[in-house]
Amino acid sequence: MPLTKAREMMEEALTLARSAAQAGEVPVGALVVKDGVIIARGANRPLQSHDPTAHAEIIAIREAAAFLGNDRLTGCDLWVTLEPCAMCAGAIAHARIARLYYGAEDPKGGAVAHGPRLFDQPTVHHRPDVYAGIATDEAAELLRKFFAERR
Amino acid sequence: MPLTKAREMMEEALTLARSAAQAGEVPVGALVVKDGVIIARGANRPLQSHDPTAHAEIIAIREAAAFLGNDRLTGCDLWVTLEPCAMCAGAIAHARIARLYYGAEDPKGGAVAHGPRLFDQPTVHHRPDVYAGIATDEAAELLRKFFAERR
Repeated sequence: MPLTKAREMMEEALTLARSAAQAGEVPVGALVVKDGVIIARGANRPLQSHDPTAHAEIIAIREAAAFLGNDRLTGCDLWVTLEPCAMCAGAIAHARIARLYYGAEDPKGGAVAHGPRLFDQPTVHHRPDVYAGIATDEAAELLRKFFAERR
Repeated sequence: MPLTKAREMMEEALTLARSAAQAGEVPVGALVVKDGVIIARGANRPLQSHDPTAHAEIIAIREAAAFLGNDRLTGCDLWVTLEPCAMCAGAIAHARIARLYYGAEDPKGGAVAHGPRLFDQPTVHHRPDVYAGIATDEAAELLRKFFAERR
């Protein structure tokens, strides 16, 4: 993928993350992309929607599956500003996401490069290709600023 | 909890699991219980709803959170006929479920007593009390029969 395209995708996910922050939610944004086209978007909103599962990735995955009329998102990419947690990594595996691109690392709640490292588990039934470190600084700064303002 | 109450709860979850099987879905059923009262029910339905996240536990947790108007299900119990997967175990932690009761073990897809053993991970932010082995034989037989008929 050309670097400008990757930049464009993560910029869109960061815009969604900023919209989450404006609504008082932890700033995380996600996209599902098929054949280079964004087919679903998610901004983190567990508090507003009274839904503990309403992480950006889950919202985008559910929307993409509804759009495609299929519970499997074969050949689709997921872009997200933060390393997915165990719930979201599990959903990524169930959805058969082909490629996962993420921004900031999450040593406390992440489940891809940290904690249970879900895609390295022998029992995982699907492993996406994982690309970390895209616009990491911006995604991390957004989170840092959000939590600093709430302290 | 008296044994008859436990039996009653798991019987209700098994009824939901049977309804999933009748709809051609892997037979898993779940309940959320608060103060001894069932406040939400879920029957596994990823295929019908074109939603890879539509496991019984996720449906019941979302419904309970909507009912209570809160993304945290503090003091609530989750009853499910099968050991939860990583996605569902992650959602259980996010929802702050107090007690998890489950039926059949799932060595292939389970993430509580198998695979990543999510609640034993040092980074998990909430650990429910876990009670396994309730109506295990019935829950396992339901799954075995379902898969045998599809072979």
